[in-house]
Amino acid sequence: MAATSPLDRSTDTDTRRRIIRATAALLQRQGYESTSVKRIAGAAQASPSSVYHFFPGGKEELAIEAMRHGAREFGEMLARGLASKADPAEATAACALLLAEDLRRSDWSDGCPVAVTALETVGRVPGLQEAATRALTEWRTLVAARLTEGGIAPAAAHTLAGTVISMLEGAELLSRVTADDAPLHDAAVHLSQLVRAAPRA
Amino acid sequence: MAATSPLDRSTDTDTRRRIIRATAALLQRQGYESTSVKRIAGAAQASPSSVYHFFPGGKEELAIEAMRHGAREFGEMLARGLASKADPAEATAACALLLAEDLRRSDWSDGCPVAVTALETVGRVPGLQEAATRALTEWRTLVAARLTEGGIAPAAAHTLAGTVISMLEGAELLSRVTADDAPLHDAAVHLSQLVRAAPRA
Repeated sequence: MAATSPLDRSTDTDTRRRIIRATAALLQRQGYESTSVKRIAGAAQASPSSVYHFFPGGKEELAIEAMRHGAREFGEMLARGLASKADPAEATAACALLLAEDLRRSDWSDGCPVAVTALETVGRVPGLQEAATRALTEWRTLVAARLTEGGIAPAAAHTLAGTVISMLEGAELLSRVTADDAPLHDAAVHLSQLVRAAPRA
Repeated sequence: MAATSPLDRSTDTDTRRRIIRATAALLQRQGYESTSVKRIAGAAQASPSSVYHFFPGGKEELAIEAMRHGAREFGEMLARGLASKADPAEATAACALLLAEDLRRSDWSDGCPVAVTALETVGRVPGLQEAATRALTEWRTLVAARLTEGGIAPAAAHTLAGTVISMLEGAELLSRVTADDAPLHDAAVHLSQLVRAAPRA
């Protein structure tokens, strides 16, 4: 990086951030394969050469960084849902309802930030598969901690948290494809049922 | 089609079928965007021009046909699972376990035949989105019918069947990405719990 003054550095940071955000949005909406560096540059109002300046590893390096960014944002949404209700069953349901709201508001495009890219590249782009695994694990840990805090036995909380992530991912897929948030609303009901039935610590 | 003799016709049918199967396998493993007609032709041991001969609409037409084929096969797997146990809760769990088995045997590549392509093209390729919606609806109808037959009240069976498909889709995503079938095994347990708790007709 050739930045020498504080002003240059802040502009650099802004451009880098804009590129990451644009990539995250494209990965979330259409996945990795149809997202070109040219398209990313256009969406970020940057030149392709500045994309390569910040990410010499090109599309793969950038996608890994963008998945991290998207994973953090999705984690924040989960944390918001989990903190919104005292009862762990209602808190879990709230995550599905927040996701439904986001999806509907974005006209069914802002779904999971890792699902499409992960499925497209599994077994073919190890760096992306690793980033996706890390994201899924972080989200699961977040949910498991909240369930344990809500009185669920730790082993049950861990298993159930995995199912919460599976259900959110699957219901989001159904909701996006059918342009209808009913699958996420049904997921909210069924997830809270499972949490209510889980063994207590 | 230029087939004139019965032999030609049967060869034509074979080639067409081989092209559809190869496309279905590629869509299942890597999705629509990175699957080219050239790659399909290679996998089907056919020439690109014969792919266009059978599918003048090119990749999109072929992908719709391949999704139909994949959806039928996935539906057959569900039907096998659903018929394998008398108890509807165990029958539902069996679907998740069959999917886990298929995934593990294929080294985590043979997952849902529509998920990747559907997520990649939602809002962008209406024909594929329609084919995916049709597949998801057929599978849900299959599960709902089995649950109703097993004594679950029709409205609950319909909602629950949607959740079964969501859960299978999501747990399959987690299993593929993490190369571990635990999410599908956990899904089996949680789905059977939900079916057991469902209101009876």
